[in-house]
Amino acid sequence: MAGNIFGNAFRISTFGESHGKGIGVVIDGCPAGLEIDEAFIQSELARRRPGQSKIVTQRKEADHAEILSGVFEGKSTGTPIAIYIKNGDARSKDYSHIADKFRPSHADFTYHEKYGVRDYRGGGRSSARETAARVAAGAIAKLFLLQKGITITAYVSQVGHHKLEQSYKNLDFNHIEDTPVRCPNLGMAQQMIDFIKEVRKDGDTVGGVVEAVIQGCPTGLGSPAFDKLHADLGKAMLSINAAKGFEYGSGFDGVTMRGSQHNDAFYKDGKEIKTETNYSGGIQGGISNGMDIYFRTAFKPVATIVHEQDSVNEAGEAVKVVGKGRHDPCVVPRAVPIVEAMAALVITDHLLMQRMVKN
Amino acid sequence: MAGNIFGNAFRISTFGESHGKGIGVVIDGCPAGLEIDEAFIQSELARRRPGQSKIVTQRKEADHAEILSGVFEGKSTGTPIAIYIKNGDARSKDYSHIADKFRPSHADFTYHEKYGVRDYRGGGRSSARETAARVAAGAIAKLFLLQKGITITAYVSQVGHHKLEQSYKNLDFNHIEDTPVRCPNLGMAQQMIDFIKEVRKDGDTVGGVVEAVIQGCPTGLGSPAFDKLHADLGKAMLSINAAKGFEYGSGFDGVTMRGSQHNDAFYKDGKEIKTETNYSGGIQGGISNGMDIYFRTAFKPVATIVHEQDSVNEAGEAVKVVGKGRHDPCVVPRAVPIVEAMAALVITDHLLMQRMVKN
Amino acid sequence: MAGNIFGNAFRISTFGESHGKGIGVVIDGCPAGLEIDEAFIQSELARRRPGQSKIVTQRKEADHAEILSGVFEGKSTGTPIAIYIKNGDARSKDYSHIADKFRPSHADFTYHEKYGVRDYRGGGRSSARETAARVAAGAIAKLFLLQKGITITAYVSQVGHHKLEQSYKNLDFNHIEDTPVRCPNLGMAQQMIDFIKEVRKDGDTVGGVVEAVIQGCPTGLGSPAFDKLHADLGKAMLSINAAKGFEYGSGFDGVTMRGSQHNDAFYKDGKEIKTETNYSGGIQGGISNGMDIYFRTAFKPVATIVHEQDSVNEAGEAVKVVGKGRHDPCVVPRAVPIVEAMAALVITDHLLMQRMVKN
Amino acid sequence: MAGNIFGNAFRISTFGESHGKGIGVVIDGCPAGLEIDEAFIQSELARRRPGQSKIVTQRKEADHAEILSGVFEGKSTGTPIAIYIKNGDARSKDYSHIADKFRPSHADFTYHEKYGVRDYRGGGRSSARETAARVAAGAIAKLFLLQKGITITAYVSQVGHHKLEQSYKNLDFNHIEDTPVRCPNLGMAQQMIDFIKEVRKDGDTVGGVVEAVIQGCPTGLGSPAFDKLHADLGKAMLSINAAKGFEYGSGFDGVTMRGSQHNDAFYKDGKEIKTETNYSGGIQGGISNGMDIYFRTAFKPVATIVHEQDSVNEAGEAVKVVGKGRHDPCVVPRAVPIVEAMAALVITDHLLMQRMVKN
Repeated sequence: MAGNIFGNAFRISTFGESHGKGIGVVIDGCPAGLEIDEAFIQSELARRRPGQSKIVTQRKEADHAEILSGVFEGKSTGTPIAIYIKNGDARSKDYSHIADKFRPSHADFTYHEKYGVRDYRGGGRSSARETAARVAAGAIAKLFLLQKGITITAYVSQVGHHKLEQSYKNLDFNHIEDTPVRCPNLGMAQQMIDFIKEVRKDGDTVGGVVEAVIQGCPTGLGSPAFDKLHADLGKAMLSINAAKGFEYGSGFDGVTMRGSQHNDAFYKDGKEIKTETNYSGGIQGGISNGMDIYFRTAFKPVATIVHEQDSVNEAGEAVKVVGKGRHDPCVVPRAVPIVEAMAALVITDHLLMQRMVKN
Repeated sequence: MAGNIFGNAFRISTFGESHGKGIGVVIDGCPAGLEIDEAFIQSELARRRPGQSKIVTQRKEADHAEILSGVFEGKSTGTPIAIYIKNGDARSKDYSHIADKFRPSHADFTYHEKYGVRDYRGGGRSSARETAARVAAGAIAKLFLLQKGITITAYVSQVGHHKLEQSYKNLDFNHIEDTPVRCPNLGMAQQMIDFIKEVRKDGDTVGGVVEAVIQGCPTGLGSPAFDKLHADLGKAMLSINAAKGFEYGSGFDGVTMRGSQHNDAFYKDGKEIKTETNYSGGIQGGISNGMDIYFRTAFKPVATIVHEQDSVNEAGEAVKVVGKGRHDPCVVPRAVPIVEAMAALVITDHLLMQRMVKN
Repeated sequence: MAGNIFGNAFRISTFGESHGKGIGVVIDGCPAGLEIDEAFIQSELARRRPGQSKIVTQRKEADHAEILSGVFEGKSTGTPIAIYIKNGDARSKDYSHIADKFRPSHADFTYHEKYGVRDYRGGGRSSARETAARVAAGAIAKLFLLQKGITITAYVSQVGHHKLEQSYKNLDFNHIEDTPVRCPNLGMAQQMIDFIKEVRKDGDTVGGVVEAVIQGCPTGLGSPAFDKLHADLGKAMLSINAAKGFEYGSGFDGVTMRGSQHNDAFYKDGKEIKTETNYSGGIQGGISNGMDIYFRTAFKPVATIVHEQDSVNEAGEAVKVVGKGRHDPCVVPRAVPIVEAMAALVITDHLLMQRMVKN
Repeated sequence: MAGNIFGNAFRISTFGESHGKGIGVVIDGCPAGLEIDEAFIQSELARRRPGQSKIVTQRKEADHAEILSGVFEGKSTGTPIAIYIKNGDARSKDYSHIADKFRPSHADFTYHEKYGVRDYRGGGRSSARETAARVAAGAIAKLFLLQKGITITAYVSQVGHHKLEQSYKNLDFNHIEDTPVRCPNLGMAQQMIDFIKEVRKDGDTVGGVVEAVIQGCPTGLGSPAFDKLHADLGKAMLSINAAKGFEYGSGFDGVTMRGSQHNDAFYKDGKEIKTETNYSGGIQGGISNGMDIYFRTAFKPVATIVHEQDSVNEAGEAVKVVGKGRHDPCVVPRAVPIVEAMAALVITDHLLMQRMVKN
């Protein structure tokens, strides 16, 4: 109800503010007997962490994930897994100047309207720091999926106007982590990096797109009516900070196609039924058909810019706002592990629920 | 869990198949004392109904909504409101030829994989007929919202390549129902109609985009983290049959903007705080800011075409499939009331939940 | 949230009022491929139906359950199963005299306070008629359990002071349906019947206890912390009209025992681990241990009596209330199938959820 | 689904094992702007803590509740409140001797069956230590209720055969905390204490009953059908470790009454409608009527006894089990604050949900 819980069978509950004591997550419904590789959780958090390169924010966050419960002798016990990530110290100073001001296109004003009170330090709960808890939970979901042969891979396919026109099939995913921008086409990656540096020099920010592919997903996941697999993936992606749009398979471009082009013809490949094309994006009628699931998520330019901007304060007076903290000029490189984490949570949830469908 | 329930505070549960006895919905959580205008429910269903014009399917569905419970002397009692819509007769004949065949890009194959059994007649539960139940429930949500001064308006903004480039602000919504294509720009509407007729003559289908605007929505709706208002709207839209993408505010186009352009400056307008621009689409940090909420939903071309297509049957043998039933060449005109209904359900749900947020 | 939905994996949503058009239930999550024996559903409803004998109310209710969806060619399809039971005609007359009066120990006053409006005819939604929908859903749960070898048997063990002191192990369940009071000890059954007739002659009512036994339940059902199996059974029983108490295993009597007496020693019986005694009632730490699960539910005397009683009306004026409709002098014989239905729903729900627990 | 989440609007998620790093709770849905008195949370935990007197276990638990999130400048922010209680050190030694043995009437066997793996130290998640998290969450619920004038008071009314026959109305609640047994009748308290000491000397344990009263609860709380207020209270109580039964109002004794005696006549007291008697226990038709809500919860004798007992181990071999750790001879004195906490959670949840009922 209050919006901090996600999932049905594999249900996570996140907590924590940007500048409070720490953030964390409780996972209720992780199957018992899963090997929990703590180093893997840590490495996923490292991918999300700020300060990885010149093109992302220079804040340093240690982001050490401490497992508080639910794991015994290296395995999940089936009881709630709580993971806690302490915040670093002394970070409240940067925000005193905006305590009663509403930063444009941040959540300051809407939180104030919703709750009446708010933790103004670094955005409080509305900070993207909350997503570290998601990445930690997502890492456990990924461990569950990996043993089932399901992989989830995300990468940056657009920054500003710099857009990768290739299909994911023609990309070498091994190059994703080669550059800080996480675009596997290294030529395009360099263009994106140069562009982000330029934008950064202007004290400005820019948006981008993260593309993701789920491979090895069995048929049958997803529900009719409301909990269609792509609807749950869409909600998951749109719940990430700064997300503005979601499309899967042919997406918005499919609008201009005719049915005779867009329909994916079935054929038999050995024992498996496959489709010749995959405009469906691996999902038909809301249910996975065994083909690759792929989708794109759009992210807006980060709201914190160095420029002076017009705004109002809590008293309703006209004020000027200038960004001070250390922020990302472009959010998408760091959004990559978050997109993967959220996708892993959705697929794990549906895999577990599918166990209940047949008599 | 099984995916046929939507909403938290205003929770609906739909049931029924295309060619079973009927379809329906149970609404749990409709506030008591709301005047239930049955004629309005009926008129909303009429907007969704097939057979309205030459550009939509010629099937005739009476779609009479019968209220079975929860309304007494014209008012909601606070107990579950069940609405039932009987199916017409003798509609199973058209489907016997595809009983064991998987129609390309339909849900036949995925339902078969998910459940092992399926009602193959007219798509069974995967039929868009299920959305009539949503429209009935959405009509009650609209009645709730209307008395709060909140309106929801959707229209067709694209069919194939025919795309309306105007902002909703420059359109006269009074013209939406003037044409069967539900595009308020009458010149563009005619282009769309001509194009759909052409596609239909080819035995083919085409996709489109529905745009929607929510006006009068108060500040504070939506939750941090997962249940952001646009994430819930996105899931709602993506749960509609044939939906392929969702974007709100600046959407995918916002990706190419810089933060300095994209940020919406706050200013004081009398007693209200407003924004100069509205790239945020009325939602910041997942919470409504009082400005208009607007979003776009992409729909793929309908999968049923008259052309012969390659496919396989349940035995895995190669077969040919030819569409026979009466189907829409383009789904978007009839998707308009469904988009509105789903949006009404989401806003009503969040309005009720917001009552619990403050001490 | 609004309280008309029960269960997680096997989730039911009931609707309808005593004197509205009808009542019904939507089951979301019934596994696909289950054979649905409609005659069995009907026979379960017949057990709950009024007018079965002189010791229950003489109202005649046909209670024909019509399956509206979710079943195709005799099998569940995995999609929502809606069941509708039309109400008989012309039943509103009996209640006009109490339209604005609050009958003592009925829900008239509390519904008025909760909702502001209410359907006063026959108690509206607060009528025990709602339980017919539960029995219909429970019948489907029973069909699911039967094929797994799980049986649920309830019977009347107390009416007023007439209390059966035998353990269920010493009773012949074949005699339960031999008498209208549903007590398998025929001598005690006669005492109960005589007593109920006497109470009825006085225009009065009396309470009783229903005992239930679940046999064949596998180990492992139930959850730690909140959703303990007995906690969910308890809630299910306490949600039945007129229920006042619930106990399982040693129950309230266990309070006076010492741990050394009360502990159930484990032993090996072939390949199975069993307990020598079963004070635990088949549930330890909230999880089933494979032994019989047994519990008792207390029901108060029916509130509708023929005597004149003091009360107030909606205007707050002192009034007299006299029961007129046809009512049960004792509710417990008809509560037997309801107790079984609710138990079947809980066990089915937990059986399905248990499928998700292991890696 | 996995059973570690409780509540709808005021939803708590607990985590942690007896001998892991710690235990905790995340509260999602605490209204914003509530003053959070940390000292009060601490004092509630102190009431539950072991080692308070000779008649409860001598284990020392510091039980310091650390608020990790959701509170800013002393007030709730409306975002999740996470509370963490670290476990003390070096407590695993006592349990190595029972690592593969199933202690009679503990959850060892059933956890083993359910999960396949388990944290055997001190019962792991099945330990009553989990209830400390509930008491912390319940303290915040109590703070919410107190400002609304609602109080919840529990006390011990029975230990073994020593049973207080007085109504709560004739007791002075100020004496509850005067003795370690928490019975407000000091004469009876001494009898109970003497009896517990005697049982303890025998290396044995005994059960008891906790009675609770909710005063100042407004009319209208609770839902029709499934989520009746007493059904939710019942589930809450039955979810506490060692609970065996629940009854409210007249409870099991009401079974022997006639309707003419049991019905609570309404009358007008100034502007309020009250009832002459209160056999209904403040709840009619599942909804609060404004009168005192009172109920009783039965607890079995603690399973850990010093005596040698027969059992089996994981290999299915016959073994002997002897209790070693420090345990309570009687659980009920420490159950008092847990009963209050669970009741506070239920009432808070329903108070918030009631805000959504009217148009």
